[in-house]
Parts: sequence; C-alpha cells; structure tokens
Amino acid sequence: MPSPQCLQFDIDARSRTCNARTGRVTTRHGSFDTPAFMPVGTQGTVKGLLPWDIAKSGAQIILGNTYHLMLRPGSELIARRGGLHPFIGWPGPILTDSGGYQAYSLSDTNKIDEDGVTFKSGIDGSMVRLTPERAIEVQNELGADIIMAFDDCPPSVDPKTLNETRRRMTNARGGRNIVDHDARLEEALERTTRWLERCARAHGRPNEQSLFGIVQGGTDLERRTRSAKEITAIDLPGYAIGGVAVGEGPDEIKRVVEHTAPLLPEDKPRYLMGVGYERDILAAVRAGVDMFDCVLPTRNGRNANAFTRTGQIRLRNAQYAEDDGPIDPACGCPVCSPAANGWATINERPFGRAYLRHLFQAGEMLGGVLVSLHNVWHFQALLLDIRRAIRDDGWSALAAAWPVLVERSAPTGTA
Amino acid sequence: MPSPQCLQFDIDARSRTCNARTGRVTTRHGSFDTPAFMPVGTQGTVKGLLPWDIAKSGAQIILGNTYHLMLRPGSELIARRGGLHPFIGWPGPILTDSGGYQAYSLSDTNKIDEDGVTFKSGIDGSMVRLTPERAIEVQNELGADIIMAFDDCPPSVDPKTLNETRRRMTNARGGRNIVDHDARLEEALERTTRWLERCARAHGRPNEQSLFGIVQGGTDLERRTRSAKEITAIDLPGYAIGGVAVGEGPDEIKRVVEHTAPLLPEDKPRYLMGVGYERDILAAVRAGVDMFDCVLPTRNGRNANAFTRTGQIRLRNAQYAEDDGPIDPACGCPVCSPAANGWATINERPFGRAYLRHLFQAGEMLGGVLVSLHNVWHFQALLLDIRRAIRDDGWSALAAAWPVLVERSAPTGTA
Repeated sequence: MPSPQCLQFDIDARSRTCNARTGRVTTRHGSFDTPAFMPVGTQGTVKGLLPWDIAKSGAQIILGNTYHLMLRPGSELIARRGGLHPFIGWPGPILTDSGGYQAYSLSDTNKIDEDGVTFKSGIDGSMVRLTPERAIEVQNELGADIIMAFDDCPPSVDPKTLNETRRRMTNARGGRNIVDHDARLEEALERTTRWLERCARAHGRPNEQSLFGIVQGGTDLERRTRSAKEITAIDLPGYAIGGVAVGEGPDEIKRVVEHTAPLLPEDKPRYLMGVGYERDILAAVRAGVDMFDCVLPTRNGRNANAFTRTGQIRLRNAQYAEDDGPIDPACGCPVCSPAANGWATINERPFGRAYLRHLFQAGEMLGGVLVSLHNVWHFQALLLDIRRAIRDDGWSALAAAWPVLVERSAPTGTA
Repeated sequence: MPSPQCLQFDIDARSRTCNARTGRVTTRHGSFDTPAFMPVGTQGTVKGLLPWDIAKSGAQIILGNTYHLMLRPGSELIARRGGLHPFIGWPGPILTDSGGYQAYSLSDTNKIDEDGVTFKSGIDGSMVRLTPERAIEVQNELGADIIMAFDDCPPSVDPKTLNETRRRMTNARGGRNIVDHDARLEEALERTTRWLERCARAHGRPNEQSLFGIVQGGTDLERRTRSAKEITAIDLPGYAIGGVAVGEGPDEIKRVVEHTAPLLPEDKPRYLMGVGYERDILAAVRAGVDMFDCVLPTRNGRNANAFTRTGQIRLRNAQYAEDDGPIDPACGCPVCSPAANGWATINERPFGRAYLRHLFQAGEMLGGVLVSLHNVWHFQALLLDIRRAIRDDGWSALAAAWPVLVERSAPTGTA
C-alpha cells in the first residue's frame, strides 16, 4: 500500500546533541511547524476560546475528539455542513483521534472484543458500537487532515497495583474481566496491529486525510519494539506513540518514549498522544517526537490553574487576593501583555492575579477564558523556544528561560 | 451646591420631529456618544467578554454593580488596586449603580427604614447595611465616572395584583409589610429625595465622579412630576428615571418615560435605568433619554437567545440544527461577519446557527461567549443607527432596517 500524498513532512534542522528535529507538516488545510503542541477542541471548540485567539497564540493545528463529535452533534450532520473545518470555523489543520480511548475510559459500560468496542453513550444512554471500520468512517465524515487508527489501549499499569478509584477507572478501559494484566497487554498489542490493517483498508479518503498508526505495548520495551515493527510495516504518512500518560509517572513516560521514538521512521512525523507537562514534552522532543496534544492548558485554565515558566500557580489561593502582577511576567500573551498584543489603548497593564482570582471566586466564566488563553499561549511559547533551541543547540538558554523544565512537575494528566 | 465639573455633556443634534438628541458625554476616562447603551458588567466583567471585544462592539461605557462588588471582592480591595478601571482592565467610562435595587430584589431577608436597608449577603449570609452615605462611600472607593444615588425603589405594580410568585418577589423589594401600596409609593418618593440630599452631602470625590439623581414615583404621573421637581432641585451633573421596567409592561414604560424625560434638565444627560428591549429604547430616545443599560444582551446570550433585526431567536430550537446561516445576516459582528472584522484568514464564513446550537447542546461555554458578543454588537449597532436617524430625521429608514422596532417584542426585563 503506497503512502498517500496529502501530507508532506519537511525537516528543517536537526539537533547535534540529541534526536530532536524541527520541521514543517503540510496538509490540505495548511502547514504547522514541528515540534508542535495541538490544543484540544474536544467538542468542536477549544473550550472558551475564539478561533482567532487560538490562531494568535501561535497554534497552527488543533485536535477534535471523534468520540464526542460522533455522539453529538453526529458526524453525518458535520459532514453535511462540509466537515469539521467550516463547521467550527477553523481553516487550518485539524487532527481527530479515533474515539477508542474515550470509549474505554469515559464510558461506564463497555465491552471490547476482537471486532471492536461497545459502549453506553454518555448523551442518551444508547449502546454505541465502534469498530476500526466505523471509527475511520466517522473520521472520514469529520474530514480532519490527520486521522488516527482505532487502537486497543489498555492501562499500562496493572490495575491490581492501583488503589480502588484508579482501579475502577482503569478497569473501565477494557480491563474489567482481565485477571492477567500481562496477557491483556499482549492481546492489545497484537489487536492494535490487526485493527490498523482494517483501518487502512477502510480509509475512504486517503488522498485528503492522512491516517496515522499507533504503537502500543505499555511500559514493556520489548513489546514496544515489536509493536513499532508491526505498525511501521504498514506504510502510512505518520505514526504515533499511544498508551503513554495513562497512569504511569514521568520517568516511565520518558523511558518508553526514548525507546520507542527512534523505532519510528525518521522521515515521518512522530506524535506522542496525550502528553503533557513541559518537562515530558521536552524529553520527548529530545527523543525525536514532533507532535503533542493535551487538554492541560484549557482544563487547568478553567480550574484557575495557570502555567508559568516557574511552575503552575493556583489563582484561587488567598495569597493572590491583592497581587496585581501578571500570571507570568515573562509571558507575551494578551492576558499578561495586552499592550504587546495591540490592545494598548484598552489595556495598558496586564490582567492582575487579584482580578483573575476575583473572577474565579465569583464564578465568572471570563476567569476560565482568560487563564485558558494564557495557558494555550504558554505551551505555544514553550514549543517556539524549543524549536529555537533545536536549531541553535541552545538547550541551556532554554532551561534558563523555563525553570519549569528543570524542576520536577506534577504527574502528566491524560487526554 | 454647584454642579461638579468632571462631566461635560455636549448636544450635537436634535430631532426636528421629537425630543430625541445626539450628543457626547465626556468624563475623566474619556467620552461616549449618546444615546448610549451600556453593557452591564455586574461583577467587574461583562460576562464572558474580553475588554477589547467589548470596545470593538462600539460600547464606550460599561456598568458595574455596587451590590455585587461590595460583597465580593469588596470595594476596599478594589480601591487598593487603584479602583475599578485598572482592576477590571477597562480604561473608558464606567457607571456604578448604588446597590439599592439589588439589596431589595436579590436578598431574601431585607428591612428598609428611613436610614437605609439591611439585607442578608448572598455570599456569606452576614447582615449588610446600606445607607445613602455607605452607598456613596462604596462608589467613591470603586471610582466609577458616574455614580448613582441610593434610592428607594419599590415595585411600581401593587403586589396585591400580582400572582404569588411575583408577589413574593416584589414583597422582597421593601414591600413586605406594606398593606397600602399607594402609601408605600408615596413614602418611597419622599424618601428618595431625602436620601439624595444625604448622598450629595456624603459624596467625597465630586471633582472626579459625577453623581446622578434618580426620579421615582411609579406609574403615577403626578408623583413622577413631583419627584422630578424635587430631585432636579438638587444641582447634579445628570438625572435618571428609576423604578421603570420593574414589572409593568412596555406601554406603561413608554407612558411614564414620555411624561418624565421632558421634566429633566434639557442640558444634562438623562438615563433610563434597566431598559431594555429595542422598542422600549427607541420610545425613550424619542422622549429625550440619552443613556440606557440592560443585562439582556449577555443574560440572553448565555441562554442561547440571540437578538436579530427581526426579533429574538432561540438557538437551541431543533429548527436550527442544520442551519448554516449567521444569527443575523444584516449584522456586522465578529460572529456573523468575521471576515469584515479582520478575521478573513481564520473565518471567511459566519459562525452558523447549527454550530452555535451544537455548542449550547454540548454545554460549551463558547456558545454563551459568541452569542453574548453578537448581542452586545446588536444593541450597539441599534444605537448607532438611532443616532443617525436623529441627525438625519431618518426614522422610516430606521424602522425598515430594524423590523423589531415595529413589531411588539416581549416585556422588558429588569436589571
């Protein structure tokens, strides 16, 4: 099967000291610079943000979630609107996931078998079936530039080692009746390969949408090697590392990514799904990863958690009640530096932490809007600086400007 | 007492066929064109909207609510930040109300006496006292350009004529123990005058903030005449018509406003508080009113009710599920006409009704943000066209462009 031609990946520069590279991915809806961080627009909106405010942050590609959009408003309805791009008002590149991960993790009732997954809709309680063929059909209807294979993604950590809450959560990810976690991981690895073959055969728009395969294998490096070999044997425009940041810590993420990334074709974009914190991103970039996504900027933003170059701050804390400083004095976003963004006549000063705290205390949605906007800028600024560090070999300058890359941050969240 | 000099009102043009006039009010924080519609920023934010997006709508002055801000985050805290302007990031003119109306209407427990009002805080349940002196002190701390007198504002409609729900609501507005509604209205009228004298004496920043008096008197035109005479006997930079749109219908609003507006000084701005729908605004403009405020654009926007030139539409309705048209084809706002607002490279097409409906169905806050933004533009565009009609005597062109001005709309809501 020849690799479809609707995606072009040009590598501009390579680090002399690690596997990092900068480049550019070009799709039918434009290009994005790599390494790239994709804000997540789960239900057809990067929560609370206008498309032009997302674009001004430097984000060039956003992500949509197949699981949510197929349930509401439905992929057929979106197809009748001309697809996701015109429907949501985002003209640039879009990537959709396959819906599998959410079908396992968000649904209380689900059953996984060799043919696919059956789960209970969170919208109307009806039983919904997702198979490799159906996941691709839905993504063909949504019309994103990059679409993802339907994979089997069990928890990488044995549910038996987790506490009760985590166990229930991970059981729901297809592990309910699995006593032997190791056998479950082995099954998932092999099934993911079989399902990728079905996805590739089912793909109805290969000249318009680029299908990426996903490597599984948990935290077992031997399995990762085998999965990478099997997955990359199918010629596709790009490959992803899945099953990471689903419960394990940052050291495990780093170990798996450093092992797996070099196993993926050097001349194709590599995408690490659902990661993550600044430090995890940097480690993955240095291992040769080109694309990232995570809900952290908007989810944390809505919860008053703001990212700064020195770590996260919780804006609800009483210590900010009379703090007029910006979230991050080094940040160039419209919240921290409105004047630098053309709003000098409206806001010559930053929005202060005291005001932002007040908005959250008062339950005002502008709080979530402003901190989400800042957080999205934060990650775009980080990736911009990372791309510069790759080109200039300026890793120590990068670490100096982003102390958060040096200090250990909180465990990576999941998509 | 001489009228303070921190507010200037220049009348540019007068209608040849009615009492309408266009002009400009200049404050220490800039000017606004009249007749003006002020978006309401209750808790220090026009809900969901960024300051520059408000400014781009054409809004030149916004309103803040003393009641909410004194309870949270507190006027002293805002004073320490330099006042409301720098705290919320709005450099233009701001008007604050006195808190009286909310103290009566939002608080379940309240007691009104000759000295002031005692009410239970909606934040922490503590008992809070507002007097004319305290209401002015709080507004002096907030630092708005125009501040409002603390008035006694009973329901204009006799609670005995209302159904149980409305009666409980209006009883809470200081009418709890009043058997004779007529006596209550008479008391409120006289008390409002006495309280205005106390407000004027208590005003600590008359060279920076302009105190407006408020005419009461319910729907009794004789009382309105007496109140207007008493209130305007106190020399102030502007006067408001209060106690309107607190339960009565649009015909009553029109009758009271057409009677009262000409009783206010011709050379000072006239402000009709809490009004309202397009048709009510037009009637009041033609009676000589210069300033308006209402929560309708943002409150309705959050509830998926969009204003159009032909009337309101409920975007949750199933009829819009596959409607790709803009909210209002004649609207120039960034939601209906993103390309005209400089976003052609991001959004060449309007945000469709189908997408907006999806956002509300999915509980996405971007729905409320987008429709609030549109609604704020809607009212600014209406006032722009009204100012043009006044100058050009173009009332029939105005009615042709805004059919909603001709058809009866829903009853006016209250602030």
